[in-house]
Amino acid sequence: MLTETTETQVTNALRAAAARDSVTDIFFVACGGSYALMLPNQHVVDRESASITGVAINAAEFKARAPKRLGKGSVVILCSHSGTTPETVEAAEIANAAGALTIALTIAPASPLARVAHHTIVYTHAPMTMTADHSPAILYRLTFGILAARDGNGKLADLEAGLAALPALVDGAIATSKDAVAAFAESHKREPVIYTMGSGASFGVAYSFAICILQEMQWVHSAAIHAGEYFHGPFEITDFDVPFIQLVGVGPSRAMDERALAFAQSYSRRMTVLDARELGVETLPESVAEYLAPLVFSPVLRAHADKLADAKGHPLTVRRYMWKMDY
Amino acid sequence: MLTETTETQVTNALRAAAARDSVTDIFFVACGGSYALMLPNQHVVDRESASITGVAINAAEFKARAPKRLGKGSVVILCSHSGTTPETVEAAEIANAAGALTIALTIAPASPLARVAHHTIVYTHAPMTMTADHSPAILYRLTFGILAARDGNGKLADLEAGLAALPALVDGAIATSKDAVAAFAESHKREPVIYTMGSGASFGVAYSFAICILQEMQWVHSAAIHAGEYFHGPFEITDFDVPFIQLVGVGPSRAMDERALAFAQSYSRRMTVLDARELGVETLPESVAEYLAPLVFSPVLRAHADKLADAKGHPLTVRRYMWKMDY
Repeated sequence: MLTETTETQVTNALRAAAARDSVTDIFFVACGGSYALMLPNQHVVDRESASITGVAINAAEFKARAPKRLGKGSVVILCSHSGTTPETVEAAEIANAAGALTIALTIAPASPLARVAHHTIVYTHAPMTMTADHSPAILYRLTFGILAARDGNGKLADLEAGLAALPALVDGAIATSKDAVAAFAESHKREPVIYTMGSGASFGVAYSFAICILQEMQWVHSAAIHAGEYFHGPFEITDFDVPFIQLVGVGPSRAMDERALAFAQSYSRRMTVLDARELGVETLPESVAEYLAPLVFSPVLRAHADKLADAKGHPLTVRRYMWKMDY
Repeated sequence: MLTETTETQVTNALRAAAARDSVTDIFFVACGGSYALMLPNQHVVDRESASITGVAINAAEFKARAPKRLGKGSVVILCSHSGTTPETVEAAEIANAAGALTIALTIAPASPLARVAHHTIVYTHAPMTMTADHSPAILYRLTFGILAARDGNGKLADLEAGLAALPALVDGAIATSKDAVAAFAESHKREPVIYTMGSGASFGVAYSFAICILQEMQWVHSAAIHAGEYFHGPFEITDFDVPFIQLVGVGPSRAMDERALAFAQSYSRRMTVLDARELGVETLPESVAEYLAPLVFSPVLRAHADKLADAKGHPLTVRRYMWKMDY
């Protein structure tokens, strides 16, 4: 049972990463919604580091793939909300056996994952807000913290400043989205299919909304379409009555999102657009604003999910399989 | 205009990769169906190399992400069927400017991509067969060839032997699937949604079937679900009337596929299963069989697509946007 504060847990994990002989790879390993949180972290490592590689990978795939680079130069960051996901616990054991440093995020400090990982960080779960103690924020603090210690990356202070500004920014974004959210829920409550679309650091949150909210919690068919992939297959499914939720980020990926949006808006009358610029993301420190966009999209999307669930009379907590049987 | 044979083109590209001062990274860059071909190559590099990293990435995302590791130690392998995909041509220019070695696959030796890349390889396009000159085979020959030259990997001979056995194996697999394919087409011709599922080296072909065949060429809603992700969200969409095409591979990822299949089969009456074992993939050299499974699934899936198109009266060549407008 962990008794340190989250701050101390983050500090201790980063200290351990800084003390390693070498760090050549960061593996971001989880399943489902937790895996979706890992995707922007691979994005950050790709964007920011010339010496360290980042790979986000599903925990079962990690076991099957058995990456040959996994070893003493690896930091393996894992996340399981309950700390009981068997694949993720097993991935931590595999990583430990390979000599990697393992850092786990969970809400359950006494869980199997917390017992296996070298370091555990307990995060705050409150889906309609975003603080520096929420899981996506902690993951960024770890990633930028490791890049600062091992690679001279200088953006950690901007990240911390951006995270400090997020709670108020998110409250404001949800408040100003209120009417749009209500209109979305009413007009989509009978849709059998709703696509999501995003790119860059925000693709993960599009994926998460598709698989965890729409498919899992609302039994609505869905797929996350990468905005850069849209024109190479998926765009042919676009029609006047096909709904898309389009995330428009900031930074270099914005052009991809805008191109997809311009096309989709011309042929679908069912577009829902969340624009990071309109949600205030550009008021955050410029060096990290593109990375923080999904941390604003996530709670605003959750507001959409809550209202959609109300309109459908299908609470987000209903499941037909999960928690009810072995699988 | 290239005049060498495909063999000479592959040999020359591999010679250039072998002659580099260092190779630390292979970037596999393309869009849509060509991007899908890249995914198993990242898988191979992850599985096989301790010294080289592999990243499969959409070409527009590659430009926006601007990976910091891209440089003189990089080989960038690109693919565009027509050789005209603007994002992929631009990615080749970016890679050249960074000092990387660029190798392009296309069917069009006089195309913009062929003009930009240092080396171009012209592949054979015949979707119902599979030879060593098809694009997924050439990509593996490049990947294993680079790993042989730079990393001491010893599987190239097994790969070549496996590829040599594929044409007959694929012809046989399509012939024995004939009745199942016809039954699939008739029973799915009015389905509005068909999911695909796969994992490991075969996830890419599940993705390709979802976005290029179902969404693009048949206007059927779809998503590729990773078998390892299925239990963490998507499985809640499963019901008696929800169709899935499940690819079951060989090697370490098979357990993931089997677990997903066992669950899905219990709750959906609309499962279509392609099992690499039943298709004869285990007769191929064991060290590369898991990688060759998608090269068998791909033409067998194309047989399904052809029959589905017939049953729907919707030819695979019909488009509403592509080739008809600028986007």
